[in-house]
Amino acid sequence: MASFDLAQQPHRRFNPLTGEWLLVSPHRALRPWQGQQEAPDRSQRPAYDPTCYLCPGNTRANGAVNPAYEGTFVFDNDFAALTPDAPTGTVEVGGLLRAEAESGVGRVICFSPRHDLTLPEMDVAAIRGVVDVWATEFEALGSRPDINYVQIFENKGQVMGCSNPHPHGQIWAQRTVPGDPAKETVQQQAYYQQHGRTLLTDYLEIELKEQQRVVLENEHFVVLVPFWAAWPFETLVVSRRAVQDITQLTSPERDAFADAIRRLTIRYDNLFQTSFPYSAGLHQRPTDGQEHPEWHLHMHFYPPLLRSATVRKFMVGYELLANPQRDITPEYAAQRLRELSEVHYKG
Amino acid sequence: MASFDLAQQPHRRFNPLTGEWLLVSPHRALRPWQGQQEAPDRSQRPAYDPTCYLCPGNTRANGAVNPAYEGTFVFDNDFAALTPDAPTGTVEVGGLLRAEAESGVGRVICFSPRHDLTLPEMDVAAIRGVVDVWATEFEALGSRPDINYVQIFENKGQVMGCSNPHPHGQIWAQRTVPGDPAKETVQQQAYYQQHGRTLLTDYLEIELKEQQRVVLENEHFVVLVPFWAAWPFETLVVSRRAVQDITQLTSPERDAFADAIRRLTIRYDNLFQTSFPYSAGLHQRPTDGQEHPEWHLHMHFYPPLLRSATVRKFMVGYELLANPQRDITPEYAAQRLRELSEVHYKG
Ligand SMILES: O=P(O)(O)O[C@H]1O[C@H](CO)[C@@H](O)[C@H](O)[C@H]1O
Ligand SMILES: O=P(O)(O)O[C@H]1O[C@H](CO)[C@@H](O)[C@H](O)[C@H]1O
Repeated sequence: MASFDLAQQPHRRFNPLTGEWLLVSPHRALRPWQGQQEAPDRSQRPAYDPTCYLCPGNTRANGAVNPAYEGTFVFDNDFAALTPDAPTGTVEVGGLLRAEAESGVGRVICFSPRHDLTLPEMDVAAIRGVVDVWATEFEALGSRPDINYVQIFENKGQVMGCSNPHPHGQIWAQRTVPGDPAKETVQQQAYYQQHGRTLLTDYLEIELKEQQRVVLENEHFVVLVPFWAAWPFETLVVSRRAVQDITQLTSPERDAFADAIRRLTIRYDNLFQTSFPYSAGLHQRPTDGQEHPEWHLHMHFYPPLLRSATVRKFMVGYELLANPQRDITPEYAAQRLRELSEVHYKG
Repeated sequence: MASFDLAQQPHRRFNPLTGEWLLVSPHRALRPWQGQQEAPDRSQRPAYDPTCYLCPGNTRANGAVNPAYEGTFVFDNDFAALTPDAPTGTVEVGGLLRAEAESGVGRVICFSPRHDLTLPEMDVAAIRGVVDVWATEFEALGSRPDINYVQIFENKGQVMGCSNPHPHGQIWAQRTVPGDPAKETVQQQAYYQQHGRTLLTDYLEIELKEQQRVVLENEHFVVLVPFWAAWPFETLVVSRRAVQDITQLTSPERDAFADAIRRLTIRYDNLFQTSFPYSAGLHQRPTDGQEHPEWHLHMHFYPPLLRSATVRKFMVGYELLANPQRDITPEYAAQRLRELSEVHYKG
């Protein structure tokens, strides 16, 4: 398909979801690494930690006591970046200093009462519980008139700034639509207007035909390394059916979403035999009261590790000043992930 | 100037150079930190390290021997992400898989023969030597027909993916204009067409009047924390005169540029009494053969430390999926930097 060798030669790839480019330098994967080593997470944690502010029955910083929860547990973030009661207002100086007040809600979702688990160590039924909470929260927050976008995400691992290993994620929901979902709206809208199908519907069709970047599939979801992946083992979890948000998933589709997340994260842990760090999150339609037929639910996984449990990719100098750059190709990353077992290495 | 309190309330700020927004959550600066601790760089290094591949007289991985250089030393990156001889070509599948071959040049610039120094520990004359090399390299690379953008940058510190503490920077020069400079071109062009002055000329005027975000000034350069800074102690070094690239700086302006860099990086080191990590780089006009009257030379510093030599800001979950977010305000960061001495803490 190519007039040059994607596996060997420096090239740029286009991200149709954001409209931005990245640099791929496959020949560079062999460069030696003498820099910082990460500390791999091989901790053995107790099922219950009396000092953890997320464990059932424990007291949080603000004095609140967690219930003796058995599945998931959701509460307002005690240190939320967004607050609902924020006053409105704007700042404008010469068109160059521009600010506007922002309001919103920060929530924390404990995935399990068990302090020692992570998503890949939970069973499908338990992960399905997490999917259901995401849907309930999206519904509740998204229907508020003061919330126009709901960002659901998880930071996993110390290297991703996660300060508590208890399995949990967050929601930041706000009045405005933030940068990336706004870009994805513009791009998906343009595609939908031109083709009458969602961008990811057509993209899935290409990937399922080529199979090169597909990591795993089930009846309702596909996991692949996108053609434009920036992080070494970045993946995209896409629903086969074009739904705008998670509340539209049927019960079998929710089970399939949980299955896809479980199988993917087990493969991640198996890759370097470590609890694999990542930031992951859902992208869905803005909850701004408009129709969004162009939107197609998906989940991004952005994991930093590159070569081993201790050597990560740094998005620094060139990446911060110019654009993202990767060394190993998405095709190679997909192949590595495809070859791994779906039985967790811890057994 | 504001209809709400920028120092206390969550808000968004607009970056006129890129056209993107960021979230500011000033009230969140007080949240406790229990996560990853960085290893501060307090190493005592020898002036010459026989195992360093950048020290004068040493042999590099590919067998080349460094000259006994006394000022700066520039060579082609032995593991360059870009190569000049790359074949051309494109990939296009359904408008969704899009790639194009990319070519370019990677260079390494040693700032000093001394293994134990960093920019803030060099004198103005030595830093002026670095400025002159940047200009020479920009000229040489930028005048090649196959190079349309020259990205000059430095990654400093292990936490910024720098694998060798010998003071050095890099250049990645390439056929296309990468993401950020391309966005800055669009934004500056629009401003210039509307106002007949560069965006940064007018922005400087506002900042010099308000003084709130100015860190230091000299006759030809101003260093400030931009109103839209994303990293905690991010700064922008701007020339007072609207020049499109570094080759247009007069000799006194180059001295002033070196002086500004020295005084800023000393303040950085003094902030947490550590060798302050950052990625920094110049943004200048594309070398695409077109006139770029809208372009205004500047240098970005993106340092990750937030609270101390060991606690950094993580650009993760929300930041990767939505948009950048900061806790301390740019005004507070500028004040902190302003209060510091310009005598290096090492004495
Ligand atoms: O070229 P270096 O110093 O080996 O590598 C460093 O800088 C590059 C350019 O910003 C990055 O792509 C790498 O991830 C980083 O480790
Ligand atoms: O909210 P946490 O887990 O304390 O903090 C973590 O996630 C946030 C949202 O991605 C980031 O802004 C912080 O930098 C990171 O440390």
